[in-house]
Amino acid sequence: MRDPSPSAAIKPEVRGLTAYTLRHFEAEVKLDQNENPYELPTDLKRQVVDRVLRRPWGRYPEFVPTAVLKALSKFTGWTEEGILVGNGSNELIQASLNVTLGPGRCVVVPQPTFTLYRLMATTLQSEVKSILLDPENLTFDVDKLIEASRTADVVVICSPNNPTGGLLEHKALVMVLQNAAGLVLVDEAYHEFSGQTALSLLPEHRNLVVLRTFSKAMAMAGLRFGYMMAHPEIAREVYKSKLPYNVNVFTLAAVETVIENRSVVNRGIEALVRERDRVFAQLQKRDGVRVFPSTANFILIRTERPARELFDQLYSHGVLVRDVSAYPLLDRCLRISIGTPEENNRFLTALERILEKK
Amino acid sequence: MRDPSPSAAIKPEVRGLTAYTLRHFEAEVKLDQNENPYELPTDLKRQVVDRVLRRPWGRYPEFVPTAVLKALSKFTGWTEEGILVGNGSNELIQASLNVTLGPGRCVVVPQPTFTLYRLMATTLQSEVKSILLDPENLTFDVDKLIEASRTADVVVICSPNNPTGGLLEHKALVMVLQNAAGLVLVDEAYHEFSGQTALSLLPEHRNLVVLRTFSKAMAMAGLRFGYMMAHPEIAREVYKSKLPYNVNVFTLAAVETVIENRSVVNRGIEALVRERDRVFAQLQKRDGVRVFPSTANFILIRTERPARELFDQLYSHGVLVRDVSAYPLLDRCLRISIGTPEENNRFLTALERILEKK
Repeated sequence: MRDPSPSAAIKPEVRGLTAYTLRHFEAEVKLDQNENPYELPTDLKRQVVDRVLRRPWGRYPEFVPTAVLKALSKFTGWTEEGILVGNGSNELIQASLNVTLGPGRCVVVPQPTFTLYRLMATTLQSEVKSILLDPENLTFDVDKLIEASRTADVVVICSPNNPTGGLLEHKALVMVLQNAAGLVLVDEAYHEFSGQTALSLLPEHRNLVVLRTFSKAMAMAGLRFGYMMAHPEIAREVYKSKLPYNVNVFTLAAVETVIENRSVVNRGIEALVRERDRVFAQLQKRDGVRVFPSTANFILIRTERPARELFDQLYSHGVLVRDVSAYPLLDRCLRISIGTPEENNRFLTALERILEKK
Repeated sequence: MRDPSPSAAIKPEVRGLTAYTLRHFEAEVKLDQNENPYELPTDLKRQVVDRVLRRPWGRYPEFVPTAVLKALSKFTGWTEEGILVGNGSNELIQASLNVTLGPGRCVVVPQPTFTLYRLMATTLQSEVKSILLDPENLTFDVDKLIEASRTADVVVICSPNNPTGGLLEHKALVMVLQNAAGLVLVDEAYHEFSGQTALSLLPEHRNLVVLRTFSKAMAMAGLRFGYMMAHPEIAREVYKSKLPYNVNVFTLAAVETVIENRSVVNRGIEALVRERDRVFAQLQKRDGVRVFPSTANFILIRTERPARELFDQLYSHGVLVRDVSAYPLLDRCLRISIGTPEENNRFLTALERILEKK
């Protein structure tokens, strides 16, 4: 290579990016990644493992994972031709942006939200138009979102939004869909906790792309699975950037097993929603804590303390949460995932003790 | 959406692409995907499964999979800071191209070769400069490759090359590395069958990126695993486009187990190399078959029959191979993966019977 610096070959937009990272902390009570604390029962895990042991590991997964596509189609009611599966929903978000974005193109992203959308779009050298949430309530600014969508190639909406927990109401989403010049990606990573989904809008809105994951409600974060639903014409185009054999045989077996045994997962979801509402009510009673309404499996709070200080104090009580204070508008904010009742009590008690001290 | 066609939002370069697809055929003797017929022993599989059952499935994999990175570093001798792991090596090829290519940028790709490089680069709206192999021997055209690399942002070389089986000699690769204006990606998917690797060139050539997979020699195509080795400065940039948590807990456990038990896999590799050389010698004796020397676990042949006809006839004998006749320069060519001795004999016998008939 004639240039002495190897990174000269890297696009300048990428060189300017800070990678998505997460510092590793061990903790007794882990409420930092919006994971589901209710593990799949051992007998279900055995079923998955037995399925995997019955098939060869040296052979590629099916080119088209028909059984899983059929199961997802039955589960959602959406046509198989409009479903793509991925190694986590992030992979399908990336594939969707890869086929739509490039220099001179523009994506609209509410802020604050999940960091990866912006990172992916910047890597593709696209303009990212941020639409700030309402600074007081951290709800979506619907009017601005609709206005910006008129000239955007893609709009990405995380609903319920991570890390704030708010929902884009159905009516508002319809307005965005009707006015958007391009695709509208709705990341429904947390939809099971909200009771709302954009699924019913798919037949009428051919620019809608719905993304879902098995990492949260479905208790499979360690296995990596997500899926996308869209008009078959869109799915066919996104498919061109999705890698072949992207979901491995273990995860395919697990997805089939979990869909067949959906009721087990549903009990966990109900428990987490109950706990979220209980934790919310407890936090609301507390002076010096602003708590934002959440439709997800986490809660965002703001206190009078610097976020880092409160994070450290909670951690010294064995409770790991997420410091999100570096996001726009989220000064002094922490995000707390909902765990088991015992874990949530550990958090509530620790917070109480910390805030009582001066 | 104001435009009636949902795919209007898709980049025109993508709309013009034909997706990478593979028609599904059932067969008794499956020699179409360069898979390793020697499954991992049952006790190793049990070890993997036991590891997986001991850890939670609802929790994300480690953000940095330290144990696997350390194992790969020990296994290869390359620094951990210069290694990235992926859900198959395809994911890391895509990440490498994502951070380097875009409109106005150019990638050099020998042809014929693995289809995905061109597909990925076109999705990124980059120019793809094809350097044809020598039309007679299907070996790399080293002079043209070096010349083209002088102005390219990226050069992608599959060595041993799929589907032709030829190797880019060490000296020629050094010349490419010395003259290249940008990165040189060497896809070593089949290197274990060739006895050659670019690994030793990494310390001296900071523009070299080496990609490897566990799908071929390592007998883990169903599990999806690949890794990338490069100068840490390059690895840090490619990392920005690699998705977080991209390798699931099952595959991480399998990779650790397989590296610890490397000798088991080595026996399979030796058997496949022996069989490749035996099949090659058998084919060379046969009139009407041109057989190309291979350093991989497959062999390319050309006959006087139309490829589709021979493919169908072999299939009617229960032998599934790959029809590669649509690739540039590969008229009347088939690619046959090396299987077990029994499988290879089934192929050789079927071919003999078919070619004896008129």
